[in-house]
Amino acid sequence: MTDSTAGSPEAAEWDLIVIGAGAVGENVADYATKGGLKVVVVEDELVGGECSYWACMPSKALLRPASALLAAKRVAGASSAITGELDVAAVLERRSSFTSEWNDASQVEWLDGAGIDLVRGRGRIVGDRRVDVTQPDGTVRTLTARHAVALCTGSVPTIPPVEGLAEAKPWTSREATSATEIPSSLAIVGGGVVAAELATIYRALGAEVTVIVRSRLLGTLEDIASERVQKSLEDSGVRIVTGSPSSVHRGEDGRVTIALGEDEAPVEADEILVATGRHPATEGLGLEDIGVNPKDLRVDDSLRVAGVHGDWLYAAGDVNGRALLTHQGKYQARAAGLAIAARAAGTLSSAPSARPEPWSDYAATADHEHVPSVVFTEPEVATVGLTSVAATEAGYPVRVVDYDLGSIAGAAVHADGYSGAVRAVIDTERRIILGMTFVGQDVSEMLHAATIAVVGEVTLERLWHAVPAYPTMNEVWLRILETERYA
Amino acid sequence: MTDSTAGSPEAAEWDLIVIGAGAVGENVADYATKGGLKVVVVEDELVGGECSYWACMPSKALLRPASALLAAKRVAGASSAITGELDVAAVLERRSSFTSEWNDASQVEWLDGAGIDLVRGRGRIVGDRRVDVTQPDGTVRTLTARHAVALCTGSVPTIPPVEGLAEAKPWTSREATSATEIPSSLAIVGGGVVAAELATIYRALGAEVTVIVRSRLLGTLEDIASERVQKSLEDSGVRIVTGSPSSVHRGEDGRVTIALGEDEAPVEADEILVATGRHPATEGLGLEDIGVNPKDLRVDDSLRVAGVHGDWLYAAGDVNGRALLTHQGKYQARAAGLAIAARAAGTLSSAPSARPEPWSDYAATADHEHVPSVVFTEPEVATVGLTSVAATEAGYPVRVVDYDLGSIAGAAVHADGYSGAVRAVIDTERRIILGMTFVGQDVSEMLHAATIAVVGEVTLERLWHAVPAYPTMNEVWLRILETERYA
Repeated sequence: MTDSTAGSPEAAEWDLIVIGAGAVGENVADYATKGGLKVVVVEDELVGGECSYWACMPSKALLRPASALLAAKRVAGASSAITGELDVAAVLERRSSFTSEWNDASQVEWLDGAGIDLVRGRGRIVGDRRVDVTQPDGTVRTLTARHAVALCTGSVPTIPPVEGLAEAKPWTSREATSATEIPSSLAIVGGGVVAAELATIYRALGAEVTVIVRSRLLGTLEDIASERVQKSLEDSGVRIVTGSPSSVHRGEDGRVTIALGEDEAPVEADEILVATGRHPATEGLGLEDIGVNPKDLRVDDSLRVAGVHGDWLYAAGDVNGRALLTHQGKYQARAAGLAIAARAAGTLSSAPSARPEPWSDYAATADHEHVPSVVFTEPEVATVGLTSVAATEAGYPVRVVDYDLGSIAGAAVHADGYSGAVRAVIDTERRIILGMTFVGQDVSEMLHAATIAVVGEVTLERLWHAVPAYPTMNEVWLRILETERYA
Repeated sequence: MTDSTAGSPEAAEWDLIVIGAGAVGENVADYATKGGLKVVVVEDELVGGECSYWACMPSKALLRPASALLAAKRVAGASSAITGELDVAAVLERRSSFTSEWNDASQVEWLDGAGIDLVRGRGRIVGDRRVDVTQPDGTVRTLTARHAVALCTGSVPTIPPVEGLAEAKPWTSREATSATEIPSSLAIVGGGVVAAELATIYRALGAEVTVIVRSRLLGTLEDIASERVQKSLEDSGVRIVTGSPSSVHRGEDGRVTIALGEDEAPVEADEILVATGRHPATEGLGLEDIGVNPKDLRVDDSLRVAGVHGDWLYAAGDVNGRALLTHQGKYQARAAGLAIAARAAGTLSSAPSARPEPWSDYAATADHEHVPSVVFTEPEVATVGLTSVAATEAGYPVRVVDYDLGSIAGAAVHADGYSGAVRAVIDTERRIILGMTFVGQDVSEMLHAATIAVVGEVTLERLWHAVPAYPTMNEVWLRILETERYA
């Protein structure tokens, strides 16, 4: 399958070229390699990608010290031992150690160990299975793939077209997760996950935080989640303003003024963070030249891009817009890597019309209605599958069952005055759970039980026999099932 | 179904008599009541039982402040805020609030609200569906059941026949969980869950602790669990001595000396706790009179006792010896309560040979090979289903897959230097998980995912699509599945 020069960085031809060496690109490459292919990845920033350096890892690392301290403060007998404050410098230093000080040496080493080649530079598709890489020294190198090219370029923050905003050089999640000092005040524009998490973090680290949100905070989640997170942020001192910036101005003193239209006083802050969403990074990849609209990239469940002559292009992770979450991108990467390898080996049909079997190794079936997600706020929000609104809109016969997590013995022992909520969205015909939402301190590790129940399509009647250990917070499962039966 | 006097404590006849008003008895009564029966429970101690007052709740409440504080100490940025020590008096006070100061008023209120009658006193079976209750004032009252009697009397600690031990008036778990002060030194005889948990608690609360264990600590669990808990206890200053007491003596100063035979120096301590196991509380219930051997009580999966003429006797919870765990007893209680009500209604066969359908509402099927359990030590141990040894002995085609929990990004963020382990026991033919063990800080809430996977018999191929959210510790599921495929 390989010629004598393939399999080394000096080669010109590989089985698979992966553009983008974030977690998703690494996994496409790894799984294809495990399937017997020779693979090269092309990366023009740090190997390891957004999640490792400017998203999940640093943001979780920034939050954990505050949440661990808060958890201890909430337990009589432990709280009196805490007399000091969070050490912000130590928190930032710990964060930086998790990003390896933004050095990708260990990730490069991992690629090497996995037998994957790396070419540094910016990749662009220039023809059938052909990628030009503009290298750091400006030279251009042409790579050729025998079987496939996979786009794993992720997403970029969307900066809304507000007067003066771009000129004010706002922070995006990158600057916010890699900051080396905490501004006295921070204005956050946006109301999604990134806005909510960074508001939580910056407030915990001592900043005055104002969130400017168009409508409802975390508006796509169940109301039990958005309402509780909003209240908790407000209780912690975060100001939440409903509105949209009409203009932004950064003064000579560096401070930022955000006008909100005529009815609302402007917001002033030392720094402004734009968290109004992200969009797939499809620009500059040469997609137009092969007949693909960069603003409308479509993939099937094997992550193969539709409408490409010869069907050799794949797109996994944020770049395809299916689910902008690291873990879901990695899931797609496993399906894509295995599908590419199986098609190269001839064990999976390559026909343009061939669709992989749902729930097989080659299909990212869970992307559609089985996606898990955690919002690391205080309280945490952990959710999988369909919300009650989405399930109803999709036409399922839905029953919603709510339970007060704070009334569970395990929660009461976990924290004094524990407050939390759980919602299950049930398909009353198939008797399975379509979606589940947990809100409360330390619920993030409770999510996977729901993910297995939802993905495994385990019936309520069988879940009845899955006994939660006492006294854990998971006893809420029993209460949800009892409520479904008797209430 | 009921006569005019039934349904009040003054009645003489009910549909069901439940002996024992612990969590198990309460649930048998509740589920039978939901099924339309009139029920009375008989209790000679506190309504709520062992778990509420002298086991799960107080022990978890005693441990939580220490574990919350330890968790915060393990995170740089948070640790420096902790300058004080655990406030032992506050810990004991918090524990006492969880046991309602050993007052059962709220539990009695719950019974009342659920429409269940209560008769206080010691119950004894005196004939077919007939129970004599010796009341607190010494009078005896006879209760009659139209359909069934359920024994839910739990278990009692086993005191081994060691010379001087009984005379030394040792602590059992009751005294240890309800103590109002912490002895300077505590010797614990036994190496099971109670011994390990109470060693963890008393060490955390400042006592010098010595554990005297016959062979291996937590010997029935996977070695990854027992070894890690033993090492952690030793690192915290607990002394673990292998041996068996040959005699015990409490001196006039109140101190206890435990001789361990000729080769080992005796252990001295201010207090001694016997935690060498428990046995079903079947004495004094009149079982012999109806032809049942109290030392060999056998039940089917509807919890109906074998060999009773008329098949009207049930036994749920510790008393039947199937699984000495509160949550599993409550699970049995649900099956028993529903089965009793269904048989009374004629919707479930009462024939002696009739066995309820496995995994139906009327069968405690999970008791056999699907039992979850958490050991609240430091690290925690959470386990469900069969261990590798038990699965192999049962003849399953077994593969064991281990993964280092500390290497998961979510664990590293959770605590600096996180140390933990996960083991999955896989049926290589059916491609399902037979058992799973988690060891590490805060793994208790990770267990239910495994319980659902094991009970739901979800295949590894479908679990592949149950994506763990990043960065949570549950990412270990992905690593376990990858290891199973590729290692």
